[in-house]
Amino acid sequence: MPITAPSRAHRRRHGVPAVLAALLLVTALGWPSVSSADARQEDAVAAVRAFRQQHAAEILEDFAALLAMPNVARDLDDVRANAEHIRDSLARRGVAARLLEIDGAPPVVFGELRVPGAERTLAIYVHYDGQPVDATQWSQPPWQPTLATAAFEAGGTVRPMPKLGEAVDPEWRLYGRSAGDDKAPIPAILAALDGLEAAGLMPRSNLKFFLEGEEEAGSPHLEEYIEKYRELLSADLWLICDGPVHQSGAPQLVFGVRGYTGFDLTTYGANRYLHSGHYGNWAPNPALELAQVLAGMKDGAGNVVIEGFYDSTAPITDADRAAIAGLPDYDETLRHELGLAATEGGGAPLLERLLVPSLNIRGMASGAVGDAARNVIPTEATATLDIRLAKGNDPAGMLDRVEAHLEGRGYHVVHEPPDATTRGTYLRLVYMVRKEGYPAARTAMDEPAVTPVIAAAELAAGRKPLLVPTLGGSLPLYLFVRDLGAPLVIVPIANYDDNQHGPDENLRLGNLWYGIDLMGAVFSMP
Amino acid sequence: MPITAPSRAHRRRHGVPAVLAALLLVTALGWPSVSSADARQEDAVAAVRAFRQQHAAEILEDFAALLAMPNVARDLDDVRANAEHIRDSLARRGVAARLLEIDGAPPVVFGELRVPGAERTLAIYVHYDGQPVDATQWSQPPWQPTLATAAFEAGGTVRPMPKLGEAVDPEWRLYGRSAGDDKAPIPAILAALDGLEAAGLMPRSNLKFFLEGEEEAGSPHLEEYIEKYRELLSADLWLICDGPVHQSGAPQLVFGVRGYTGFDLTTYGANRYLHSGHYGNWAPNPALELAQVLAGMKDGAGNVVIEGFYDSTAPITDADRAAIAGLPDYDETLRHELGLAATEGGGAPLLERLLVPSLNIRGMASGAVGDAARNVIPTEATATLDIRLAKGNDPAGMLDRVEAHLEGRGYHVVHEPPDATTRGTYLRLVYMVRKEGYPAARTAMDEPAVTPVIAAAELAAGRKPLLVPTLGGSLPLYLFVRDLGAPLVIVPIANYDDNQHGPDENLRLGNLWYGIDLMGAVFSMP
Repeated sequence: MPITAPSRAHRRRHGVPAVLAALLLVTALGWPSVSSADARQEDAVAAVRAFRQQHAAEILEDFAALLAMPNVARDLDDVRANAEHIRDSLARRGVAARLLEIDGAPPVVFGELRVPGAERTLAIYVHYDGQPVDATQWSQPPWQPTLATAAFEAGGTVRPMPKLGEAVDPEWRLYGRSAGDDKAPIPAILAALDGLEAAGLMPRSNLKFFLEGEEEAGSPHLEEYIEKYRELLSADLWLICDGPVHQSGAPQLVFGVRGYTGFDLTTYGANRYLHSGHYGNWAPNPALELAQVLAGMKDGAGNVVIEGFYDSTAPITDADRAAIAGLPDYDETLRHELGLAATEGGGAPLLERLLVPSLNIRGMASGAVGDAARNVIPTEATATLDIRLAKGNDPAGMLDRVEAHLEGRGYHVVHEPPDATTRGTYLRLVYMVRKEGYPAARTAMDEPAVTPVIAAAELAAGRKPLLVPTLGGSLPLYLFVRDLGAPLVIVPIANYDDNQHGPDENLRLGNLWYGIDLMGAVFSMP
Repeated sequence: MPITAPSRAHRRRHGVPAVLAALLLVTALGWPSVSSADARQEDAVAAVRAFRQQHAAEILEDFAALLAMPNVARDLDDVRANAEHIRDSLARRGVAARLLEIDGAPPVVFGELRVPGAERTLAIYVHYDGQPVDATQWSQPPWQPTLATAAFEAGGTVRPMPKLGEAVDPEWRLYGRSAGDDKAPIPAILAALDGLEAAGLMPRSNLKFFLEGEEEAGSPHLEEYIEKYRELLSADLWLICDGPVHQSGAPQLVFGVRGYTGFDLTTYGANRYLHSGHYGNWAPNPALELAQVLAGMKDGAGNVVIEGFYDSTAPITDADRAAIAGLPDYDETLRHELGLAATEGGGAPLLERLLVPSLNIRGMASGAVGDAARNVIPTEATATLDIRLAKGNDPAGMLDRVEAHLEGRGYHVVHEPPDATTRGTYLRLVYMVRKEGYPAARTAMDEPAVTPVIAAAELAAGRKPLLVPTLGGSLPLYLFVRDLGAPLVIVPIANYDDNQHGPDENLRLGNLWYGIDLMGAVFSMP
């Protein structure tokens, strides 16, 4: 899952202690208790914890068997083998498990566990596919699961898998593609079910499992799957199990993701490169034209001045502000680490800025610069921009506003590369490529369906989780919210330094233990 | 000489007839006669013309011998061989010729011909070095002079050099590196001296010849040569023999060149690429910053709004405007050919726009665009700009104005790449690289010293020459004007489609004949 955590380098540079100190301060101040575990849930978590302590070796062995299966989405035979393995693992725990199919797409593993008398249905999303690998960059083959005494970067060395009953250090790391992103929730689910079963306990909600096989390929069939199996997928709450926990190591729950859209703008000069001496001052310069187009989109404080750009955005609520205030204040540290003299938006917190749509120039190009520059007037200039959408923003509607803004400033906007006649006709001409996009997805911070999950995370972690209003990144989670009508919350398990997407991906065992306990607590929510 | 004429392709596309028609109109309207040839000059030109008609084969043979000598400035032995050959050729015509030397630099061929009773000293500049070649791109080896019946592009075929006394077609082309740029004036000078000698005539001015050997390498020692030999180089008028005639084929005299300066601007974001989702809207975007910097330098009509940018510029005189009005009006044709909807400067003529300083963005770069774009906030953005200087503009002074403009808009301008502290301190930070530059050089259109040259060109060509106030391009001719205190005029000989700098460089023989007649006329000016 393309959730990016701050890099290890970043952690090394300015250290965890500052973050931890801030976190401890927050914890000391106390987070208002919005829900409490009951004794039955506490017993269930204790049972699951005891089970995974006794059976650590078997849990790791089973997980290693899953990690040994190559799982790049484009290799359909590979992903199907994974899906069948997971289906069978669920079935052995009494889950009614099967593969959902769409022609040519990796199958979805779907499982259902109905609990007599349960009044809630929880749906759990995981993806079992992984990023493609460059095996030459790995310390061990990517699909040869390898245990180490710590992160390799921290001096960890390879060690054998534990023997039955052998004590396991939570700082150990299990290396392998998808160890963190995103197979980690699978052994957590399975061990939690086993732990409850061993204690003679049942989950207290109906459970649905939905394991996607092509998330890292951009979820090209997710919408189709959701549409096709809409009734099967009804639930009261979706838990999106993906991504890493907070860089401080604290558990966290994330209430949304940003949406995305984008566009390219191209302006034009003459139809061939012109000598800047012979024509400079007479033939218009497309780079200047583009600069003027872009400069007019934001004010000096970094606020977008495109008419109506912010209008459709869901207001920031008191609950959002309270949640942000409850998180470690990392902004100054981050600003300093990134070498920034100031930030956009008049100094508003980063997490609050994620709740309004952004306009970002990804790149800008015209002619050549520096030593490569020639004495020319370029023929065209192009910029690529993205808009990260906040809740309420419609992707196409946002591009419409950009387009209306350009037209309002006298630009003739075309959607195909302009022909010679068009270029010869319109002095202020912009070729705009509108990208596909999708909206944001957010659950209110005080959504009652999520309240017991907060308590479950606290019960599993032994400390209050951080509650994050939204990720800055974009994911098409709107499909769950829009098409299935259920609230969702992102429930990460993996360590933030799991090298997701890169070589030497790994899972810290302490995070797997947290995941198992968390699943035990979630399955047992009152 | 880097004078660029419109390409052959251009001529092919919209044809010469329109240009010629405009020219003929101008000619029909009549150019005020500012000076007249006297009978003695007419006789001299007639003698030179008769001589070159009788001796066309020998003139071409001698020229071919010169063109057979490789002449890339960096090959010092090669250029020295050229210089010695030219020195000896001049000496055989009674010119006191020698090589001027600076250690490590190609020699300058200097020659002087003192004429008893002459009241004027004319200095003639030529360069004998040529652009480096890519021999694989040539139809014939670059230093194997080859005669063709027409331009290869027009279907010309290789033919033998003419026999003694054989009639020569002016449309023939002699191919070889530097045939047009800029060895062509050398056989013109030599044949004119021979023609006068054969008729028992003397030049009527003292003559000085200055042949540079590293113009195509950027004239790195020209200033030093002029300084070292200042007294030797005193003259009443410099004729800069270089570049092509008008694309219509009409003779032309050019009264100046633009100067040049330039700069790079870089703006900064964070010290590493940031995920546009996680940080977009909070971390400043250097591409936007750069766009705002650049956009604020020109208004919507393409006029520079930097305070005082135009202040030091010599005013456009009535004589300038009259000269421009006397030239074929090519602007609409050009605008159409280049596919431009409009031009900068409120529709002022191109040739008038060359008389004010220009500000041009050569290139602009930040991140990547289109399919190569990534979901990032770039770390920096750079633009490279050039300023073409008009008469009166001081290169460093113009950069000072740019800098003052930036500072006036709140930017902190640094001249070295900023360190982390600087980047962390100044929100509006610009790293400016100031380029070396040099001023423009222009002679007034009504400069009396040039008047007889206009008449000489008319006498040689049989029609009035076009008088061009300035080239758009830049050359360091200010050295002649500033350091030697003499007016100058550029006197081109070569055909505009001579492929200068490229493969298959050539000289149209009709242009060589014009050059010979022109030299005869110039040497015999009353």
